[in-house]
Amino acid sequence: MVVNKYDEIARAAIRLFNKKGYHATSVQDIADEVNLQKGSLYHYIASKEELLLQIASRSIHGFSRELESIVNLEESASSRLQKAIHHHFGIVTGDVEMTTVLLRDAFLLSDEPHRIIVAAMDEYLNHWVKIVDDGMNAGEFKEGDPRLAALSILGACNWVYRWYNQNGTKTPKEIADYFCDLHLGGMMR
Amino acid sequence: MVVNKYDEIARAAIRLFNKKGYHATSVQDIADEVNLQKGSLYHYIASKEELLLQIASRSIHGFSRELESIVNLEESASSRLQKAIHHHFGIVTGDVEMTTVLLRDAFLLSDEPHRIIVAAMDEYLNHWVKIVDDGMNAGEFKEGDPRLAALSILGACNWVYRWYNQNGTKTPKEIADYFCDLHLGGMMR
Repeated sequence: MVVNKYDEIARAAIRLFNKKGYHATSVQDIADEVNLQKGSLYHYIASKEELLLQIASRSIHGFSRELESIVNLEESASSRLQKAIHHHFGIVTGDVEMTTVLLRDAFLLSDEPHRIIVAAMDEYLNHWVKIVDDGMNAGEFKEGDPRLAALSILGACNWVYRWYNQNGTKTPKEIADYFCDLHLGGMMR
Repeated sequence: MVVNKYDEIARAAIRLFNKKGYHATSVQDIADEVNLQKGSLYHYIASKEELLLQIASRSIHGFSRELESIVNLEESASSRLQKAIHHHFGIVTGDVEMTTVLLRDAFLLSDEPHRIIVAAMDEYLNHWVKIVDDGMNAGEFKEGDPRLAALSILGACNWVYRWYNQNGTKTPKEIADYFCDLHLGGMMR
């Protein structure tokens, strides 16, 4: 398999950030992982922070891209919400390590790059809010606060990166189906 | 107000970890915050890692202590679940910075101290699972996977540390009430 060298570097960084955290990972560590001299690594990346920004940015845009089209489907809000949950689950469970960098390490970015990621995450949240708001306006969902309801669902779905186990007995699809039932229908019998 | 010097040190560390992250905070930074020489600081703490462990440990035990008594109340599962959600919200919103250290930075502990925190967090989760399981067994909650349902609720409640804003228009109690409605009754009208 031919892998783009930049992708190989990003993947090595993701692995190391997951294991040791961003600050404890040196550029030398990353270079060692991809068998480059530190000097040569700088042909590919401007800095460790730039790499973190690009990983986090790629991750959040991966989340957003498809959700944007889900939001605009001509379907009921509950159908779109279920698709949004499945989409989110697919990305988190498909790449827990990259999601971890986005959700756990990206806060370590300095002011300007951090603002870029926060803005992209807000935009992603707003897609969720839009679906919930549509459902409330259509009388499909109970009245309430669409932003808080979206934060509740998205929070539950984000937290998956902390506990998801590839070797568990349930598939990501089964877990996502169950989350749809829980959030749409609630716990009460 | 007389403040125990150790508590003052822990509070300074919590503030710095929140702002810069654990790794980027030096023992010297902490000493500067509390007007101690670095050497004197070591009369109070064994190491920066020991301090992180004690902060995380104090935090998770703060969560667990009261939940344990809520679990054992002679009340319906839904009543206990509502109390658990309110309890969790109270702690997160009452001390977002300390919760952030627990939920975001504690993974940076090395193997043995990290295992201690993970075990305490598992124990906390198990209290939630117990309430959900009781409700399912009693026929009060829909049948399902009590661990996944608990992870869904707890994930939503944990994520609060990321977005809670003290200057928001809703009180923590109002948000917690709404989360109870959402998780117990669901979104669907």
